[in-house]
Amino acid sequence: MPTDPATVPSGPNRRIVLRRRPQGLLQADDVEMVTEDIPELAEGEALMQAELLGMDATVRSWLNEGEGYLPAVEIGEVVRCSGIGRIVATNSPAYEVGDIAYSLPGMQDYAIVRDDFFTSKLPPGTELAPMLSVYGATGLAAYVGLIDIGRVREGETVVVSAAAGATGSLVGQIAKRYGCRVVGVAGTPEKCRFVVEELGFDACIDHRRDDLRAALKEHCPKRVDVYFDNVGGPVLDAVLGRLAQGGRVALCGAISVYNDTHKPPGPANYLELINRRGTMQGFIALDHWDRFPEIRETLRAWVEDGSLRHVEHTFEGLGSAVEALNALFTGANTGKVVVRVAD
Amino acid sequence: MPTDPATVPSGPNRRIVLRRRPQGLLQADDVEMVTEDIPELAEGEALMQAELLGMDATVRSWLNEGEGYLPAVEIGEVVRCSGIGRIVATNSPAYEVGDIAYSLPGMQDYAIVRDDFFTSKLPPGTELAPMLSVYGATGLAAYVGLIDIGRVREGETVVVSAAAGATGSLVGQIAKRYGCRVVGVAGTPEKCRFVVEELGFDACIDHRRDDLRAALKEHCPKRVDVYFDNVGGPVLDAVLGRLAQGGRVALCGAISVYNDTHKPPGPANYLELINRRGTMQGFIALDHWDRFPEIRETLRAWVEDGSLRHVEHTFEGLGSAVEALNALFTGANTGKVVVRVAD
Repeated sequence: MPTDPATVPSGPNRRIVLRRRPQGLLQADDVEMVTEDIPELAEGEALMQAELLGMDATVRSWLNEGEGYLPAVEIGEVVRCSGIGRIVATNSPAYEVGDIAYSLPGMQDYAIVRDDFFTSKLPPGTELAPMLSVYGATGLAAYVGLIDIGRVREGETVVVSAAAGATGSLVGQIAKRYGCRVVGVAGTPEKCRFVVEELGFDACIDHRRDDLRAALKEHCPKRVDVYFDNVGGPVLDAVLGRLAQGGRVALCGAISVYNDTHKPPGPANYLELINRRGTMQGFIALDHWDRFPEIRETLRAWVEDGSLRHVEHTFEGLGSAVEALNALFTGANTGKVVVRVAD
Repeated sequence: MPTDPATVPSGPNRRIVLRRRPQGLLQADDVEMVTEDIPELAEGEALMQAELLGMDATVRSWLNEGEGYLPAVEIGEVVRCSGIGRIVATNSPAYEVGDIAYSLPGMQDYAIVRDDFFTSKLPPGTELAPMLSVYGATGLAAYVGLIDIGRVREGETVVVSAAAGATGSLVGQIAKRYGCRVVGVAGTPEKCRFVVEELGFDACIDHRRDDLRAALKEHCPKRVDVYFDNVGGPVLDAVLGRLAQGGRVALCGAISVYNDTHKPPGPANYLELINRRGTMQGFIALDHWDRFPEIRETLRAWVEDGSLRHVEHTFEGLGSAVEALNALFTGANTGKVVVRVAD
């Protein structure tokens, strides 16, 4: 059902495009906000006006050269990120004007979406921000990483890093639901307080102030059965040194190294995987997308019974996108970082 | 059935005991060969006269301080190693004089053995050397690491390091039996030639002469599904960089680092485990001991049908034990290193 041309908006489309590969933290002049015309639609395409963009550490990894699990963003391309918006024009049978869709629009006002793997329609009336956190790839990563990859069992000790972040905060709460001892690792006393007092973690280690090794020994007296790793670096190494027999490390990301210009050393304690018969397994939430409707319903039930809180940290305006992304790395955020582009 | 005291041998027992913790390669004066009386037997004990001792890289790891999967050998204790010998006196209902047993006697002429996890009787007429290689913990490690941990499937690409060593040579041959493309990594042109021409590997990379990354790209055009790691270090790192989607790394040991006095950096490429949805898992062959009778029969059938060759590299005399152990690290051996203590 091609759109009546009268309904195709015309006018400017602000886009944040990559100008050079960042060295370290993304700098304002690594990108440029350009204004282009709203694109015309080819057959099978629809136009989405972004309302909320979701910031994930992996967005920064896509800006580095080289093959990852998705192709790197090329110079001149819009910075890829997830987002939710309204379909405002359509040349695709999959979408009608007014639909709400979740996709990878990138940092821009208007994006072309297709009926593809990365795009899904949301029911009318959906509250948008949670669709980027607990009901989005973040919630999927937390669930799959802890349950499928971490194979968590009741009574085990679970450690999660970036504990006050979007994923970590969900992981810890789900592990509590499973009857685990849950120890977070976070970067400020406020975040540690938040996950213990507000989210019910048993303890939280401040990796900037505490002696990691001593703190892990204190808070994980029976060692660590499952480690959900969002950060890599010294925290991963320290937890490997405290692994329990048959311990599992679910590698979700490595926020501590995405900004490094030289590849940092790997975890020297990896040989503990032999002594402890441990497993370290990487995963990508998107691989499990087909199971997401079912998992989302589980998460929804937990949110509704009050056992799972989700927190969003909102930045206002497309112009704040770089600052919002960097908040993940400077630790300025608590919960899911979203950018409100339009209402 | 206590032994008739007349049959208890008396006389000297040569023992190689640890004098100080080695720094790097085991030095002759890190140990001392002492001569003590043959010990008396308490209730439940039997005396084994060692005939062959088996050298494994893990023997060196037991000499380092700290908790491994077995306790460290203490200063003054005999250097722990596997071995096979004859029961020459018994105060245990589990053994009769004349029995042949496999145990962890350590580097000495006579050892006390018990009816325990580490000791098993062998059928009369057993050929001894293969019991330390293909029919011993070495064969078990090769089988379990490749089949259970590596979850190898027909048509996959398998890489194994220390390819001409006791374990690696078996792993590669078993993988060929499974219809895999098999690429070895070894330290000399002669070893590479041996595993390709004599054992049927598809290719072998000389890690001292070849550019590891380029060679892996050349010999593993479809990347690496299973990596059986005996060495750690730069080889592990390079193979992680060439991992296939869903690739598995079975961590058997890390011969390249056991002698290091400082913990070397871990594998910087571990993040490929995320991009490639890979798994790195450590294992200890002894954990699978209960399945060994069944696995040994499988290995025996393969030896008998000619598809599995085992190679032993024999050193003569207890006095050669340090040299024999070091051969594993200097790369002087091909196949299983055994020390003949007595006939």
